[in-house]
Amino acid sequence: MYDLLIHNGTFVTVDAEETIYPNGILAVDGNQITAIGPRPDSDPLPPAGETVDAGGGIVLPGLVNAHTHLPMVLFRGLADDLPLMTWLNDHIFPAEAALITPPNVRAATRLSCAELLLAGVTTCCDGYFLEDTVAGVVEEMGLRAVLGQGIIDTPAPGVADPEHNIAVAKAFIQQWRTRCPLIRPSVFCHAPYTCGPETLQAAKALARAAGVLLQIHVAETRDEVSQMRARYGCSPVVHLDRLGLLDRDTLMVHGVWLDDAEIALAADRGAGIVHCPESNMKLGAGIAPVTRFLAAGLTVGLGTDGCASNNNQDLFKEMDAAAKLHKVASSDPTVVSAAEALNMATIDGARAIGLDAAIGSLEVGKQADIIILDGRHPRLHPLHNPVSQAVYAAGGDCVRDTIVAGRFRVRNRRLVGWELKSILAPVEKAARPLR
Amino acid sequence: MYDLLIHNGTFVTVDAEETIYPNGILAVDGNQITAIGPRPDSDPLPPAGETVDAGGGIVLPGLVNAHTHLPMVLFRGLADDLPLMTWLNDHIFPAEAALITPPNVRAATRLSCAELLLAGVTTCCDGYFLEDTVAGVVEEMGLRAVLGQGIIDTPAPGVADPEHNIAVAKAFIQQWRTRCPLIRPSVFCHAPYTCGPETLQAAKALARAAGVLLQIHVAETRDEVSQMRARYGCSPVVHLDRLGLLDRDTLMVHGVWLDDAEIALAADRGAGIVHCPESNMKLGAGIAPVTRFLAAGLTVGLGTDGCASNNNQDLFKEMDAAAKLHKVASSDPTVVSAAEALNMATIDGARAIGLDAAIGSLEVGKQADIIILDGRHPRLHPLHNPVSQAVYAAGGDCVRDTIVAGRFRVRNRRLVGWELKSILAPVEKAARPLR
Repeated sequence: MYDLLIHNGTFVTVDAEETIYPNGILAVDGNQITAIGPRPDSDPLPPAGETVDAGGGIVLPGLVNAHTHLPMVLFRGLADDLPLMTWLNDHIFPAEAALITPPNVRAATRLSCAELLLAGVTTCCDGYFLEDTVAGVVEEMGLRAVLGQGIIDTPAPGVADPEHNIAVAKAFIQQWRTRCPLIRPSVFCHAPYTCGPETLQAAKALARAAGVLLQIHVAETRDEVSQMRARYGCSPVVHLDRLGLLDRDTLMVHGVWLDDAEIALAADRGAGIVHCPESNMKLGAGIAPVTRFLAAGLTVGLGTDGCASNNNQDLFKEMDAAAKLHKVASSDPTVVSAAEALNMATIDGARAIGLDAAIGSLEVGKQADIIILDGRHPRLHPLHNPVSQAVYAAGGDCVRDTIVAGRFRVRNRRLVGWELKSILAPVEKAARPLR
Repeated sequence: MYDLLIHNGTFVTVDAEETIYPNGILAVDGNQITAIGPRPDSDPLPPAGETVDAGGGIVLPGLVNAHTHLPMVLFRGLADDLPLMTWLNDHIFPAEAALITPPNVRAATRLSCAELLLAGVTTCCDGYFLEDTVAGVVEEMGLRAVLGQGIIDTPAPGVADPEHNIAVAKAFIQQWRTRCPLIRPSVFCHAPYTCGPETLQAAKALARAAGVLLQIHVAETRDEVSQMRARYGCSPVVHLDRLGLLDRDTLMVHGVWLDDAEIALAADRGAGIVHCPESNMKLGAGIAPVTRFLAAGLTVGLGTDGCASNNNQDLFKEMDAAAKLHKVASSDPTVVSAAEALNMATIDGARAIGLDAAIGSLEVGKQADIIILDGRHPRLHPLHNPVSQAVYAAGGDCVRDTIVAGRFRVRNRRLVGWELKSILAPVEKAARPLR
């Protein structure tokens, strides 16, 4: 007898063969998928602890949001449509200095987790400060996550003296190494222009010794690349490579301004990259050369970035934006297909953060991270093509159920075990000093 | 005593002063707004037939989707990621020839209307064939609309012989001229490359005589512009102007490839334009020069286009795409601000379709076309800036209530008077032959 059976849906597995079961059935035991396949109409349903009717909806692997700053939801809509440096120096940095305290981080992270789960994200890869507080909330909310304590050569929330940034990151890793089966600690180096060579090398040494992922923003803006060239005489990726930072356990974020040599180098070293199209668009940063990333064989995940620069955490919207942006950028409607965008938001994102053996597709032996799109939603009709529907028609609000490691975290569009009101009120209170 | 009072929300009026009432109150009598303003905390609520608590949500004018092809929802996801001509010739045209029948148009239009109302669109400007059938459904669903019977120099659904295209359009106008207070008939000329000069002039003469809007696709693709230059020795807008088509009652759609002379000419003639960013992106058509449209003083509305090329009818997503696309296209995060995007989706869209005296803002004397964004939705917190929230954070599924001409069409996220199931099943049935 299975613990959980899901039937009566179109199952998009995102396995290597891109198998789709138009009328499928999937079984879960404990936290794992133990069976998946087509369901002959005449077969009776096998017995199970719980049987869930997907209601003719689309069943997908839980989405992987490969780049977030969960607590920054506190600044959603605080300062938009501004020049990048005005936005950062006059609004975001002062707001962070004033408001990023453990209670506020707790309140904000809870909202972000609610928003992610309700929109079908089962795994996120986060980098921020006070990450220990972030991790506590993520554990409580039942999201799967790779979480990186921030490292930067300037004072930051919880790390008043940058001298201690490596030590704080190390303590974070030790604390979360085995504490929660859904959480993997990581190191989040802010960027090569905000961290000196010594910091970068110490951070990588720490990550390597602990066997964890190193996340780093790279080449987000053209200015950053000019600065790097002026300071180090080379491009950011070459700089990172010279310092020994590039390998399979390094995740670059943005990469808007990578040139072909950097792309080839990153591909050769096996480093993954996270594409954040909506953030890059909104800040006017530029259009990442994603078609060239894919051609070079780079592993490309998809991220919403933090809510100060997006301003939502809907990975369905991000898939849609990625697919459309590169079509218009290249004047070619065939590039970044719906299937490629869905791969980025699932299996490729999982691969980029080192979790593809466990998640990212609906396959036997993988973790039961599963979402069901609501078959009653008008946007999902008529159903000609479930992949196209998920990428171009759906939005996060089409998610009916979200299951992480076999447990329902969202059921019938409601968080399980949480009153939304009790999550929203503390965030409004925390944000009030900014009005 | 008012018929309807709405209170306890942030009212974004979109009036000329961009007035926002952080704690506002609005009164409706019959189909009109009769009062709006701030609400002093201590004031008791005046008596009203119905009092609606906006629940701390954002109250906006109903959105104006200024370019749709409602029945094309039947082809949502049918054929994506294909070269433009393959998509059109091998998929869309054959599907139209086979499936655009009155019963199918009825089923599909009902779904589109449901989708629009649920996502906060209270007015749409549509152009298609069998528009008489479209109009019947729009009337039934209670949407406000400008509806144009299609004119094209090739056989089309319901107009087997193009010789009759003007006569069919004329009959449509006569039939709908006074039939429904929410519907205004219009003429929809497909495009200058699919309609010869005589057809264009006859269509404009018909529209002018009837005092209705002429809608026309213009300069959607670069190929189209080359074709026009080869055939007529001038750009599409100059061609239309030479034929006498450009005036305040002409609405151009797309305008992706307009040059500065065309923009100046259109502005001089007072013709409006509809920007459809997501359709243009997905088909790889190009990026319309919207910042130049705005600088030239053109009236710019916003449209989702038909569901064959988008594939949804969420104008919130379209606002977000418009704001972000032009930022990245111009490397300037200050262009197409949230307020400008909201204007396009409300008052400027209303102006473009000739309805700005009646709709597009929350002002005394205007029609009571009002939407309420759900204050309980996690994406709408914290609330620093309601305009930014509506454009960058919200989606169509954040709409709690939709009111058209004083009548609730959506209440608590449900269509009033319709079972969604009874709308979805006929569309699935109609679409089945395409599988």
